[in-house]
Amino acid sequence: MFKKNIKVLDCTIRDGGLMNKWQFSKELVKNVYDSCVAAGVDYMEIGYISSEDQFPRTEFGPWKFCAENDLREIMGENNTNMKISVMADIGRIKFDDIRPKSESVVDLFRVACYDYQIDKAIELAHHVMDKGYEATINLMAVSKVSDRALEQVLADVAESRIGTFYLVDSFGSLYSEDIHSLMDKYIAALPDKQIGFHGHNNTQLAFANTIECIRKGASMLDATMLGIGRGAGNCPLELLLSFLKNPKYDMVPVLRCIQDYIKPLQKDISWGYFIPYMITGSQNDHPRSAMAWMASENRDDYVSYYESVVKNKEV
Amino acid sequence: MFKKNIKVLDCTIRDGGLMNKWQFSKELVKNVYDSCVAAGVDYMEIGYISSEDQFPRTEFGPWKFCAENDLREIMGENNTNMKISVMADIGRIKFDDIRPKSESVVDLFRVACYDYQIDKAIELAHHVMDKGYEATINLMAVSKVSDRALEQVLADVAESRIGTFYLVDSFGSLYSEDIHSLMDKYIAALPDKQIGFHGHNNTQLAFANTIECIRKGASMLDATMLGIGRGAGNCPLELLLSFLKNPKYDMVPVLRCIQDYIKPLQKDISWGYFIPYMITGSQNDHPRSAMAWMASENRDDYVSYYESVVKNKEV
Repeated sequence: MFKKNIKVLDCTIRDGGLMNKWQFSKELVKNVYDSCVAAGVDYMEIGYISSEDQFPRTEFGPWKFCAENDLREIMGENNTNMKISVMADIGRIKFDDIRPKSESVVDLFRVACYDYQIDKAIELAHHVMDKGYEATINLMAVSKVSDRALEQVLADVAESRIGTFYLVDSFGSLYSEDIHSLMDKYIAALPDKQIGFHGHNNTQLAFANTIECIRKGASMLDATMLGIGRGAGNCPLELLLSFLKNPKYDMVPVLRCIQDYIKPLQKDISWGYFIPYMITGSQNDHPRSAMAWMASENRDDYVSYYESVVKNKEV
Repeated sequence: MFKKNIKVLDCTIRDGGLMNKWQFSKELVKNVYDSCVAAGVDYMEIGYISSEDQFPRTEFGPWKFCAENDLREIMGENNTNMKISVMADIGRIKFDDIRPKSESVVDLFRVACYDYQIDKAIELAHHVMDKGYEATINLMAVSKVSDRALEQVLADVAESRIGTFYLVDSFGSLYSEDIHSLMDKYIAALPDKQIGFHGHNNTQLAFANTIECIRKGASMLDATMLGIGRGAGNCPLELLLSFLKNPKYDMVPVLRCIQDYIKPLQKDISWGYFIPYMITGSQNDHPRSAMAWMASENRDDYVSYYESVVKNKEV
């Protein structure tokens, strides 16, 4: 499928870092960056942007903060066609800590929020736009948002200056019919805005749902190399590029980075299809209890985990 | 999704055995059988049926042959609600070696064929039906069949007495729009027949494509525990059951069998999402070159494999 307006955003480091607190070697991050540039990826999201007093540097690697000097150590002035993205959580970055775009290699702020935080998200997004950046709003956990609340969020976004709004399948629980129905709502409410999609792979549907979003008109698409990401992970970048067939994308640098740097991470980090993640996905639950189970010595006792989840629902 | 006419066929042993020449312990096969019965699975396909002179018993386990005494060691008279299926390849079973249904615990013969074998497939299917069995025809590798040839196959099947015809994504290369288009053709040509689907997971779309087939009217659905199967494997049974939500299905016996018997097989057999399988899927190729690559010492050199595949295409 060749669609000219499609943009691919790699969030290998940002989402993958949720599994190891962003403790990647500088060499690995540099290689992911170089590979994304060579592959023709449109945006690379390198981490979260947070004020330094929000988290201890002793515990978290540099991509929890995205300080300007750390960014420049990887990419210098980023004299490439690829744009640099950071994700901002509401309340984790002080407005005064955000420098003007003219002093930063960052191009895009993506503001992640829950439905009840939409006003704060729009405020932050407008603030960074006024400082010269692009901005998106990524509404998380939409599978738990009521129709009424979603209508209000979409109306607020429609009135804002934000150019791009994201459909996010936070729990990896959406089926194609859910995707179609949500995309119809997003497109109808936001006819002049770009729609993005970020999937999770709990039920092996992240790639499939990305395709359904493209069919419905989404044009900004998140993916990670080998699908690395929290829990079950994300839509694999290599699958997305193989589907798009857009001549500007090159698979080889992505495959090389996977074999040299990403695949070897599996020795220390478990992401991908595991039964506990599949259970939270199919139950439309946050994966946190599955992640705790996977970190326990009972990780391979699927029956006990399933029964605990179902029992909790029935109480 | 609750659809009353849906039938689930577990082919854990039949398709999984392609990875280890059906060298499963009797205890494992018995547990898969008991678990499928307890889970409410409609059919269990336990292996291929072949005449004894076709393959050496020294190399292949019993589920390459499905001799009646081996079947009965697992299931006795199979006094359950679950039906027993075997798969027949054209030319591997002599008609005279097929006993009448009254002397067998087998209920269903599934005849796998390529498009140019359709006449032989119908002949075999009619033969087993005349001996008292149910029969399906599973047309393999449809992604390589021309529109004209497919039309002829569908016309031949329409005129036959076969009750069920299968859409098979042999190479794991079909996207949802391909599935929709093929299902439309199958349903239009065979309005009075049941349509089945068997997917492969090369591009992580086996479950997604199964859902698309259900939406389009397929009602006989193949799956395997933890997706075990040749190369990238199949649609995971646990995902399919979680989607169907039909009260007759019970997830717990499946999860227990996975944790006790199937997951531990991963120590010796590699199936699932691996880059070489993803490459053949996205290129609409048979996975045999990927399986050879995975068995070689270069298995983690994805770039060389990709370049060899693309180069072969260009010659």
